[in-house]
Amino acid sequence: METVRVELGRRAYPIHIGAGALDAEPLYRSHLRGGRVAVVSNTVVAPIYSARVKAALGRAGAQVATEVLVEDGESAKSWATLERVFDGLLAARIGRDGLIVALGGGVVGDLAGFAAAVYQRGIDFLQVPTTLLAQVDSSVGGKTAVNHARGKNMIGAFHQPVAVVADVGTLATLPDRELRAGIAEVIKHGFALDAELVSWLESHLERLLARDTEALSHVVRRSCELKAQVVAADERESGPRALLNFGHTFGHAIEAGAGYGAWLHGEAVAAGMVMAAELSVRAGMLAADDAARLKRLVQRAGLPVQGPPLAWERYLELMAGDKKASAGRIRYVVLQGIGQAILRHDLEERDVRAAIAAASAKPQTAASR
Amino acid sequence: METVRVELGRRAYPIHIGAGALDAEPLYRSHLRGGRVAVVSNTVVAPIYSARVKAALGRAGAQVATEVLVEDGESAKSWATLERVFDGLLAARIGRDGLIVALGGGVVGDLAGFAAAVYQRGIDFLQVPTTLLAQVDSSVGGKTAVNHARGKNMIGAFHQPVAVVADVGTLATLPDRELRAGIAEVIKHGFALDAELVSWLESHLERLLARDTEALSHVVRRSCELKAQVVAADERESGPRALLNFGHTFGHAIEAGAGYGAWLHGEAVAAGMVMAAELSVRAGMLAADDAARLKRLVQRAGLPVQGPPLAWERYLELMAGDKKASAGRIRYVVLQGIGQAILRHDLEERDVRAAIAAASAKPQTAASR
Repeated sequence: METVRVELGRRAYPIHIGAGALDAEPLYRSHLRGGRVAVVSNTVVAPIYSARVKAALGRAGAQVATEVLVEDGESAKSWATLERVFDGLLAARIGRDGLIVALGGGVVGDLAGFAAAVYQRGIDFLQVPTTLLAQVDSSVGGKTAVNHARGKNMIGAFHQPVAVVADVGTLATLPDRELRAGIAEVIKHGFALDAELVSWLESHLERLLARDTEALSHVVRRSCELKAQVVAADERESGPRALLNFGHTFGHAIEAGAGYGAWLHGEAVAAGMVMAAELSVRAGMLAADDAARLKRLVQRAGLPVQGPPLAWERYLELMAGDKKASAGRIRYVVLQGIGQAILRHDLEERDVRAAIAAASAKPQTAASR
Repeated sequence: METVRVELGRRAYPIHIGAGALDAEPLYRSHLRGGRVAVVSNTVVAPIYSARVKAALGRAGAQVATEVLVEDGESAKSWATLERVFDGLLAARIGRDGLIVALGGGVVGDLAGFAAAVYQRGIDFLQVPTTLLAQVDSSVGGKTAVNHARGKNMIGAFHQPVAVVADVGTLATLPDRELRAGIAEVIKHGFALDAELVSWLESHLERLLARDTEALSHVVRRSCELKAQVVAADERESGPRALLNFGHTFGHAIEAGAGYGAWLHGEAVAAGMVMAAELSVRAGMLAADDAARLKRLVQRAGLPVQGPPLAWERYLELMAGDKKASAGRIRYVVLQGIGQAILRHDLEERDVRAAIAAASAKPQTAASR
């Protein structure tokens, strides 16, 4: 078992990483304040892991008063599901000294975390992430939210968990496509922040894809360390935390342009990173060889290296969230080298267009449709 | 114009108090961050004051992109109304650099403040309170919330405004009953924290009831100073802030027991304070003469000195929010003297019963019904 600490002063918390972590009652015990506990999970994860988590909580002395199950998938990050979570918490009389345990992937973490942020003006929550994406990314940093018809994560809060229990053993049951989507964020941490992690991935990718416990523990730990450093320096995302968005500006456009749900978030980020690297090369900041290393690693991980066939104007619109978008108004996270992301808002529209063209399937013309 | 500062470090903010304050564009100017502005108000207040507020915002250089109006009264603090506010903010493309101006009483402040707390994970809001209750109490301290069928203020956040513009001129249009309900909270500040304010009220109550601008400014300023000190010492209500709940434990039971909406919050607090003073006398902590001074002042303000006719067991249930309540489990804010509130959780059920009996209308027996 390894532990990474996220240093946030009074809101500092540990991330415990290892196979079998979710059964280890000492990891829960110190976070119980005597109040009642609610487990929030989904209908796919709960049947596999919830009994073990509840048993460990019980051994730790917790009174698990309720279990609220939401549907699987992004649709659960809704206003209606959130209301159902509150109904469950109130019916179980969870008090201000209560605890919400979020058991599942990023959706459950975002939803349950936001519920904890505003239930009775804020109660504790503890994350037990069960996807690689959640273990390496969404469970670190305290971002919680639900979606709105007009946009993802529109309603939310910054609310840090009291602890994260990242059991890499749970990744054994993760669908292959979701494992690869999680690897996209690990690749992102490497290329944005840590050249050594990139080299490690280049030589250990097969072990990771084979779900070797040690390899999984390594990337979860290193990703959490990297993200924890950035978050500690910039909790509310006013500065350096934006670097974690490498691949995400293009990625969000890909997700939205393809229709939410068609691409997994990690898949969109993968192709988005390839675009951002192309842009970095065109802006004269990155060697073409380094962009090629990114593309090759993404490809080896079985992730897409091309965005969907949309006109570049549509990409810009989606990136700016605005019909009147111009490339110049958008901030891009680009690379000055491997592991050296920076934020730029003075890039040429010409370069952005070329990067999109280089890393997306060719849009059909009106004539060919 | 006077200004009280709420000292909360990075979240410190000014409360500007005076007649005509809402027209003073300099009070808004320094809080504009360049983004779009939304005014949230209700259907009663907006027709009277919204044009003036929007004009002042315009003179300050703000781009008021939308005005969201909610229904008047406590029913607006609902999940459904909150969703409507988000729809309005998103339709008007209010961004992270945007500002919500809450124009109205406590309901509008609580609702719009909570919307600001979670919209895009938190944007700025500025309060323009138009009731005495909101000016002396709810606009100080950053508590925001909406109600749930199972309880008031169940979903909320601590979110400090960037500024409060308390125009006592707006109190000219306040219904008499609401003015008196606001005075209840001023009386509370005096008896809980400041003997001098009590003496001042005893000699100036008629001027206050006649809505004399100077008298109103005095009680708003002094109340804000007192509350600001307590909040600065204890933003998240873990300790001394609980003293501001003098009269509120009984008061909440009165509000709920009478059926929400039958009593105004301030009216319930008034009778609740009389009960809490009776309890203080019975617990041997307060002179009977001091309790009598409270009762007399409440009466002179035209506020109720008796709770509704409920059995004492029902009061206990409502106070504890629990069917299995015992008096011993409830924490009471009681008085050791005028201006000297303390928190106690070791009081005798016998004394609580006697205090309820002394300060509530007699419940009907089964036979007499």
